[in-house]
This record gives sequence, C-alpha cells and structure tokens, in this order.
Amino acid sequence: MSEQNLQILLASRPTGRPSHDNFRLVRTPVPTPDDGQVLLKIRYLSLDPYMRGRMSAAKSYAAAVEIGQVMEAGTVAEVLESRHPDYKPGDMVLSYSGWQSYAVADAKALRKLDPNQAPVTTALGVLGMPGFTAYAGLLTLGQPKPGETVVVAAASGPVGSAVGQIAKIMGARAIGIAGGPEKCALVRHEFGFDAALDHRSPTFAEDLRAACPDGIDVYFENVGGKVWDAVFPLLNTFARIPVCGLIAQYNATGPFEGPDRLPVLMRDVLTKSLTIRGFIQREFSAQYPAFLRDMGGWIADGRVKYKEDIVQGLESAPEAFIGLLEGRNFGKLIIELG
Amino acid sequence: MSEQNLQILLASRPTGRPSHDNFRLVRTPVPTPDDGQVLLKIRYLSLDPYMRGRMSAAKSYAAAVEIGQVMEAGTVAEVLESRHPDYKPGDMVLSYSGWQSYAVADAKALRKLDPNQAPVTTALGVLGMPGFTAYAGLLTLGQPKPGETVVVAAASGPVGSAVGQIAKIMGARAIGIAGGPEKCALVRHEFGFDAALDHRSPTFAEDLRAACPDGIDVYFENVGGKVWDAVFPLLNTFARIPVCGLIAQYNATGPFEGPDRLPVLMRDVLTKSLTIRGFIQREFSAQYPAFLRDMGGWIADGRVKYKEDIVQGLESAPEAFIGLLEGRNFGKLIIELG
Repeated sequence: MSEQNLQILLASRPTGRPSHDNFRLVRTPVPTPDDGQVLLKIRYLSLDPYMRGRMSAAKSYAAAVEIGQVMEAGTVAEVLESRHPDYKPGDMVLSYSGWQSYAVADAKALRKLDPNQAPVTTALGVLGMPGFTAYAGLLTLGQPKPGETVVVAAASGPVGSAVGQIAKIMGARAIGIAGGPEKCALVRHEFGFDAALDHRSPTFAEDLRAACPDGIDVYFENVGGKVWDAVFPLLNTFARIPVCGLIAQYNATGPFEGPDRLPVLMRDVLTKSLTIRGFIQREFSAQYPAFLRDMGGWIADGRVKYKEDIVQGLESAPEAFIGLLEGRNFGKLIIELG
Repeated sequence: MSEQNLQILLASRPTGRPSHDNFRLVRTPVPTPDDGQVLLKIRYLSLDPYMRGRMSAAKSYAAAVEIGQVMEAGTVAEVLESRHPDYKPGDMVLSYSGWQSYAVADAKALRKLDPNQAPVTTALGVLGMPGFTAYAGLLTLGQPKPGETVVVAAASGPVGSAVGQIAKIMGARAIGIAGGPEKCALVRHEFGFDAALDHRSPTFAEDLRAACPDGIDVYFENVGGKVWDAVFPLLNTFARIPVCGLIAQYNATGPFEGPDRLPVLMRDVLTKSLTIRGFIQREFSAQYPAFLRDMGGWIADGRVKYKEDIVQGLESAPEAFIGLLEGRNFGKLIIELG
C-alpha cells in the first residue's frame, strides 16, 4: 500500500479565510508515465500566497483550480522512472506537480536541478519563483537608484527578503516591514536591511516615517492593507510601486467599508507622478537566465541570504497554508514529503 | 487711464467649487521692463483645469498661487517694448504671464510665434500645453498599438480631442466620452472618433461596454469620477492608464463616502497587470520639438482638428473658469483681451 499516491484536492471554495473543509486528502493509484514523460516522487512542495487566488473562481491571471482537482504548487521531485532520454532515475527536478506525493510530468515541463550547486529547496524560493519575482519586479519596475529608499513588507519572506537585499546591492536604502520582533531581527541582522519595522507596533506609522526621512522612492507592494496606509503619505514624486501581491486582503470579502480611499490615491498619483504597476513574474521570463546567474552569484558570495521554514508531511499542507496567509511562517514555507 | 494694468488676483482659497469671491479685479500701473526683458500686452489667456490645483494650498507638483498674487496662466501676447535684441515691438509670443492685461517678462522665458504658420491661439491649445499633454502622455505612457481600444473623457476638450485623434493616427480605435449630445456630435463627426458617448446618459456604463467589445487597452484619465467607474471593469490585462487630470474631483472635499474602492482597484492592478501612471507634460519636455513637428504636420494635412471656445474680456475669466470645471466650455477655453 506504500505505492499509493497521496493527494490533496480542492474540496470547496473558501469564503474569506480558508479552512480545513476546503481541502480533501485522497489516495489514488500511482500514475504511469507515457512516452516523453517521467514518473516523479515529490520531495518538496512550495506553499505561496498566490494559491489563495487559485482557490477562488474569480477571474485572475491564471485559471482557478477546479473543485476536485489537485491543489497546484511548484515542487522539487526525484525522477523514479523516465521515458525521456534527458532524464534518468535519481535526477532531481523542478516541476509544477501540485499537492501530491507522486506525479507524471512531460519532460519538457521540467528543469533539472544540480544539488551540488545549491540546495534543491532553493529552486522553490530564493532561486525560484519568489526570488525571480523580487528580482524582475524590483529591477525592471522599481528601478532603485543609489541613495533612494526602498520599502518592502513581508520582509522576512522569500520575496521581501530578496527585494531588500537586491536593493542594497543596487546602492539603495532598504526598509523592511515584518510581523513581530523575531522576524524583524532576522530582517535587520541576517538580511542586512537598514531598518526593520514591526507592523504590529502601535507606533508603526510613526516608526516608518522616522525610518524614511527622505520619503519612499520604491514601495514593493506584496501585502496591501494597513501597511499601504502607512506607506502612502511618504511616497515621493516619481515613486514606483510594483504590485506583486496583496496578501492582507486575499481573505477579505467586499464591499469594503468607507471612507473611499480611491479619490485620494488618484489625487496623489497625479500630483506626485506615481507609477503603480501590477505584474506577475512570468511576464519577464526572458530575464530568467540573468536572474539565475546574478542571484546564484550573490548567494555564493554571501550578499544574498535566505531563510526556509520547512514543515514535515503532505498532510500538514492545509494547516501550513492557512498559517501562511496569517503570517505564521518564518521564512520561505516549504513542505517536505516523507 | 487706458494705460492701467487690469489684473485678477487670488483673493481667497476656495473650499469646493470656486466662486467669484475667490477672485479680485485690481488696476495697477503698467510695469516697466528691465534690461533683458520685454513689456507685453496680453492678447489671449488660457484657462485650464489645472489652475484649480494652484488655487489650493495643498502640496502638488507646482507651488500654489499665494493670496494676493495674480492668477497664473499661459498667455499669447504682443511685444510693446523690448530691451532684448531677439524681440521687437509687434512680435507675438507665448508667455506665462497670468490673468492680467500687461506684463513684463524675461526674454528667455518666451517662445516667439509665427502667425503665418498657425493661428496664435493654437499655442495655448492643440499646439501648446494641452496638445503636448495628449501627445506625450498617449505616446510615451499609453503606447496604443494598432487595433487596440483607447478611451478618453472630456473628449471635446483640447486634451481629449487630441488624444483620440492621435490614437486614430496610431491605428487604434478611439472612444470619446463627453457631456451632452452637442459635444458628442463634435467628437464623433469633427474629431472622427469611432464612437462618442454621453456620460450624462442613464445607460452610459452599458453604452461604454457596447462601444468596447474587446475591452479597453488605454484609458487616458483626465476626469476621474463616475467615468472611472464605468471604465474600470472593462480594462484589459496590461492596460495602461496615464493620469493627467481628475477634473471631476478637483472641487471635492474629502473624506469620501464608502464603500472603499481602493482594495478593488489594487486587486485588479494585480490580477490584470495594470499600469497607472500620473504625469505632467513637462516631464517629457525633451519631446517638445518632435511634438511641434508632428502635430503641426497633422494639423496642416487635416488629420488633427481642434475647436476653440473664445470668451471676450479679462473680466469674464472667473465665470468662464468656474464654468470650465463644470464642463460648460465647448472646446479649448481661451479669454480674448480687449
């Protein structure tokens, strides 16, 4: 019976905060690869905030997961059986196999990983989608210049920590926002931000103002909510706001209570010549080779550090994901499969 | 006594809609030019929505007019007396002399106009700041591609009419929004937009949807208010929104009644990879020679048309300006001085 495939399906769509009822654990036969495919044993599973969007039926940049489908996710897997000449059993690969323990995949949808070059889990974090989101969004859209001030929230997470460290490499000041003193210490001392601010502090807005005496030139938006309210009045003329996530409002159900902040936003967009730009990293996929080269180099020479929060067992994924949306993870959240 | 300078000063700052009390008409001695300066007789005065911002003390891209100062404005003037070798009496110039009948100006702050090339009033409209706002904002930020849909409001005005006509030249579809059937007829038949919609119609939102069957790729924002609400759900993935004005909210006094539309805006910024970019034309001043060449050519060959609404007498400026903020003008609003 050890040969069964453990899968977590989307059982129902959440209203507001997801609950365990929205997921269903099932056991199915291990699938068999066709020509050009490989059979994979999933070793690591990435949990990321964007998955909340996939659980909803609302139109987005990607199709929703259907009810009864396996939850989507990036995964690091080992090839068990190969029907493609480029892969052999034992190879480690990056795949997009979802919340399950086995999968078949087309060989052309895989990227081979070299465990000697970097720990394979980094392909889900600092050397994967979150790291690339930080790299492409900050450099292409944020365009930090030496001496400018870059602010990012969820700064202990995989996107935020990379944003701040890349900003520092570009010569900018990096101000990180995180939840609680432990995360702030990580941001300040491990990731080397110029300041780390706790958004739970009652003096958070004043703390941010004090940490940004010359205002904010780039706000890398990945959370929304009350962090936005503190950032907004500090934005400088020509500030750039790349938007890659809004985790603080993913569980919210509208309509939203007034006052209406849209007219005030648009007034400042106009009077400060602000740029607000939503993006997903795949828009910039042509930059991926440059990212792997640059980020790989920065990790090798110690200029970029990363932190992973590895949780054991596929069965833990729903609880870990619910916690992720509330900021209970401490670094890049990864599920390690038994 | 004909030698006195008639001036309109900012008497007080408006709360909400400006009133006649906010302006004061005074008579002062005609000023005398120093070396390097000229004495100007103002012939035409431009009235533009941005002046509402200058009447307020709130921080903006330009300093406010101080109480007791002459109201600011672009002007077309005749040189009466010159103490600079480049200018002689009778020359027509573009200056920034404000709401008055005479002014001295530094010669280096002037641009000489050739009345044989184009009517001098066009230097305040289609060949001036409004036309350049349309040109630089649409081409640099809006970047319309052939077959895309461009929407602009205040489409019978100097910015909107130029936006739509340039969009057509670039091969895009141009949808104009204006107030009332007379303005819509001008937009459709004189300016050649593909459709003109009356924002006062009770079916306006549905009319806009019907006129944009493929959604909206560029929304050139110069009004805000309820036009935004109709445009917003129709924006396509990667839509661009250059923001050069928000006339519908210039007279508004916050806080604004809920629901709060900001979370919904940001959600779509993210899921549709929208770009919202505030700007003022002087950011793009390096493009001014190209603008004069292109726009001059398009006017000469009839591809760009314009409409001016010329009101007589400096004393009429306050009432005309109040009307401008309510859309009572019909084309580019200009005061002709006696």
